[in-house]
Amino acid sequence: MTPECIFCRIAANELPSTLLYEDEHGIVFSDLHPKAPTHWLIVPRRHIERLSDLTDAERPLIGHLLLVVNRMARQAGIDEAGYRVVINCGPAGGQTVSHLHLHLLGGRAMHWPPG
Amino acid sequence: MTPECIFCRIAANELPSTLLYEDEHGIVFSDLHPKAPTHWLIVPRRHIERLSDLTDAERPLIGHLLLVVNRMARQAGIDEAGYRVVINCGPAGGQTVSHLHLHLLGGRAMHWPPG
Repeated sequence: MTPECIFCRIAANELPSTLLYEDEHGIVFSDLHPKAPTHWLIVPRRHIERLSDLTDAERPLIGHLLLVVNRMARQAGIDEAGYRVVINCGPAGGQTVSHLHLHLLGGRAMHWPPG
Repeated sequence: MTPECIFCRIAANELPSTLLYEDEHGIVFSDLHPKAPTHWLIVPRRHIERLSDLTDAERPLIGHLLLVVNRMARQAGIDEAGYRVVINCGPAGGQTVSHLHLHLLGGRAMHWPPG
């Protein structure tokens, strides 16, 4: 855990938040500034700063997080219609919190280009 | 391989395309209609229709594809500035080819919301 990291603190239950899902590897909660009817963040408990920091050993972890994305899409009832998954890496990618997170967006038709 | 699938045919070398990278699990080529200076598609050789079809056993595969994304970002020279990864699942997500693929976009500041 990185004490000054807001996502680490949410994962450690140090900040009030409503978790939509949690397991030993990750947590899920709503984006504070939702851009779609469903806009949830899937976040590993482990403090990985950027997608580009991912190691070979963390392949199963990121794979697990994508399965959690699918599970949450079913829970939100958006799996049939469809959804978008976005991972921002670094400033040009639009990453604003330096703890890896996956955006799940759905409940409306997503447009192109993706930002 | 699904013979009528365009991405399966590219992976099988049946269609002309310039592969930027390939290994036993996946291939990488440029998006035909790029939305950023770097806009590449990372595609598993295996015909998985949608992200939502991913099985438990395919966790390492999707993890591998994300490591390929990182490798390609380094190759494109966009890893330091940052980049965005997008996976569209189903029609509302904006998926237009029914073979799982990851979009890697960078070389410019990506905007928000992501479509």
